Amino acid sequence: MAARKTPQITLDYNNVLTSAVGKSHGLTAAAIDGIAAKAPRIAALLAAQRAAGKLPYRDLPYRDDHAKAIAASVARKRGRFDNVVVLGIGGSALGATAIYTACAKPYASLLDKKQRKSPRLFVMDNIDPAQFAAMLETIDPARSLFVPISKSGSTAETMAQFMICRELLKKRLGAKYARNVVAITDQAKGYLRPIAEQEGYETFPVPDGVGGRFSVLSPVGLFPLAMVGIDIKALLEGAAAMDRRCETPRLRENPAFLSAAIQYLCYQRGKPMSVMMPYSQALRDVADWYRQLWAESLGKIRTRGSKSECVGPTPIKALGVTDQHSQVQLYREGPNDKVFTLLAVGDFGCDIAIPKAFGDVEGCGYLGGHTMGELMDAERRATTFALTKSQRPNVTITLPVVNEYTVGQLLYMLMVQTSFAGELLGINTYDQPGVEEGKIATYALMGRKGYAAARKEIRSLKGSRKYIV
Amino acid sequence: MAARKTPQITLDYNNVLTSAVGKSHGLTAAAIDGIAAKAPRIAALLAAQRAAGKLPYRDLPYRDDHAKAIAASVARKRGRFDNVVVLGIGGSALGATAIYTACAKPYASLLDKKQRKSPRLFVMDNIDPAQFAAMLETIDPARSLFVPISKSGSTAETMAQFMICRELLKKRLGAKYARNVVAITDQAKGYLRPIAEQEGYETFPVPDGVGGRFSVLSPVGLFPLAMVGIDIKALLEGAAAMDRRCETPRLRENPAFLSAAIQYLCYQRGKPMSVMMPYSQALRDVADWYRQLWAESLGKIRTRGSKSECVGPTPIKALGVTDQHSQVQLYREGPNDKVFTLLAVGDFGCDIAIPKAFGDVEGCGYLGGHTMGELMDAERRATTFALTKSQRPNVTITLPVVNEYTVGQLLYMLMVQTSFAGELLGINTYDQPGVEEGKIATYALMGRKGYAAARKEIRSLKGSRKYIV
Repeated sequence: MAARKTPQITLDYNNVLTSAVGKSHGLTAAAIDGIAAKAPRIAALLAAQRAAGKLPYRDLPYRDDHAKAIAASVARKRGRFDNVVVLGIGGSALGATAIYTACAKPYASLLDKKQRKSPRLFVMDNIDPAQFAAMLETIDPARSLFVPISKSGSTAETMAQFMICRELLKKRLGAKYARNVVAITDQAKGYLRPIAEQEGYETFPVPDGVGGRFSVLSPVGLFPLAMVGIDIKALLEGAAAMDRRCETPRLRENPAFLSAAIQYLCYQRGKPMSVMMPYSQALRDVADWYRQLWAESLGKIRTRGSKSECVGPTPIKALGVTDQHSQVQLYREGPNDKVFTLLAVGDFGCDIAIPKAFGDVEGCGYLGGHTMGELMDAERRATTFALTKSQRPNVTITLPVVNEYTVGQLLYMLMVQTSFAGELLGINTYDQPGVEEGKIATYALMGRKGYAAARKEIRSLKGSRKYIV
Repeated sequence: MAARKTPQITLDYNNVLTSAVGKSHGLTAAAIDGIAAKAPRIAALLAAQRAAGKLPYRDLPYRDDHAKAIAASVARKRGRFDNVVVLGIGGSALGATAIYTACAKPYASLLDKKQRKSPRLFVMDNIDPAQFAAMLETIDPARSLFVPISKSGSTAETMAQFMICRELLKKRLGAKYARNVVAITDQAKGYLRPIAEQEGYETFPVPDGVGGRFSVLSPVGLFPLAMVGIDIKALLEGAAAMDRRCETPRLRENPAFLSAAIQYLCYQRGKPMSVMMPYSQALRDVADWYRQLWAESLGKIRTRGSKSECVGPTPIKALGVTDQHSQVQLYREGPNDKVFTLLAVGDFGCDIAIPKAFGDVEGCGYLGGHTMGELMDAERRATTFALTKSQRPNVTITLPVVNEYTVGQLLYMLMVQTSFAGELLGINTYDQPGVEEGKIATYALMGRKGYAAARKEIRSLKGSRKYIV
């Protein structure tokens, strides 16, 4: 799984311009220049925040201390585990999943134990008891490393999972069970840190000031990924390479700023939905990671003076070519209320010849002699063509190949894009106040101390039986 | 995997009413009554279409001929196959995936061969060469049944896959390779039918007039599902039970009509997005199946007189509780432009006790003594509460348990809902003209005869290098 150094990823924005999709739906050079004029100020602001230590995610590609400690830990564990079970949700799960899907061999977990080169990865980001019970039946706990990830140690889902797994491990392994746990949590504070110290777990830090959705390049993503054979060094190098490209305040040369500007302008022009559509099975979970990054960062109540307003684009995950047979009818003929980001892949790393057969059958004979990769590429270009012809603005981000180095570039670009978009929207990119109400309601319903009033309120809101059919 | 007969699924719409979410975003009784007044006319129209044989999907639950032929075929194949590989895309893939995920044991495919009770299911609904190559490496072709599904036999993705697999089988098995293929295609027409007859494949029909997105209860869904141990009899019984509930023209008693009315009214009132959020890992792929059904049926150019208009809600897939940590910030504080359909599960079929531990730790000790199922349920209720408090209209469909019988009800309800919604919107629910342009472009790029002009047009539209960064 070693990553070759490769050319950089590119952003093609021809098809958001008025020249491609017309005046009603396209962006004018003047509109882009308008954002370009703001870019130096925002670039300076972001640079100042970074210098002041307020954007620590930006420096994660250079944290050699994390990479070295993780490599040493992984080396010590070699051969001991068949499974790595991440217990985490949201930002503690999505990054590892995205990169694993992108860089691990497809179906690797279906191989027989002897054929597997790395432990299998289970990312448990839900609390469905049927799924969790099935996972526990599938693995041998003694041969599994459990990795609870929670900065605060109060994430209900993760702590519930962890309490269940810990009990299971203790029953099975006794006092030495702690060797099957690595906790990733705050360096000093929170509820999981003292538990880890008391029980004697190995730990890695969630660095200060790095929120879940910006944590993929911290130990939150790096440790489980390194355990299952992902080349985290190449991942960080890719991110660092993108960091260098994002230094320029010149909008049209900075892929992250430019992409943010396009998204922002389309949003302002009546396109509240932003579709990310990878033409690659490997990149499908990147779209889920991005969904959190984009939605939780930008979906905010914006207060200006005495006026409050709900703002934020809605990110939507799609998959090429699959969703051509599901969503493209809507994308082309439904309301023109979306901007599209296609992810293209230059070289899939392998290809399959379509044999010459049925040469006399008009409906499929023409396929023979081509390859599956050619068909994939033709369909992506066909969709781009069809969207553009219907005046649907679309950009294409191309990864020359899919590996740790290019995925590192992509994820870092999308994080910087989010920071820039947050400044354009005028909201706090890094908080998530809208999640609190639900957490409080959960605490109330689960009987946590101090939430009796909330419990009463929830129970009072029971609807009428009359409106159930 | 036998399905218990269970109480029926329910639709709770308390939280779309003005009483719950206020006058700006809620529906008044008068608005619902307005649709109720139209319901008898639409019900009569749909009944007439059905009687005239124009809605054959409605009668699929009663097609005993399909069920019997499939059961006999499956019985003949017992023990011969370790894998069932569906080659299909869109409606030929999404239904089988949704039901398999819902009704099969989680992680069943990770079990050792000896422990598995049924063949593994691979639904290949993409043409990513890296994924397809890995699938072919993972399975033993001689022990695998390949099931190409294409009504026309001209679906490029499916036929390309099939040509590759056929070659592989022929090399491996010689002339008797046909025993490892079951084709599902048009009964008489198309390109795959004569191939199947010439090569000697067993076949099942895609019934006349049943479009891909309405085909899940035909052999398209039933045959592969029966091969991997799903109880298709219970599935059809569930669908039939829902059919009976959908007979009434009284809107408030008809779950499909009522759900359509709510979706339509919210769409008309400035909510172009419809989120389906199952609180169940098992139901997660139902949301993908529904995405196609809803988007491809309702996303249409509507022509009235000389005026054309692009209409159609955008379906969005989310997952509880997972997406509480990803999308709920946006759902609560972003623009109020969505209607939510939560899928709840009464009984997960198993539960896991959260052990009493860390009793003195305020942030997680309160969880001990509860169960994971309780936490899941509390979080769903908490999200419902939080959405409602933010005036976000939401309905909840509850499945008492998840099994073939209840999933059959759900899918059938959603199909009838779509038919009803199409009439409200005034579009043709059953065509997909917007997909053609992309297909033509693909044919052109792949060198199919007769598409030279299109090829020229596509190539002429190449964008400028200037707009690539």
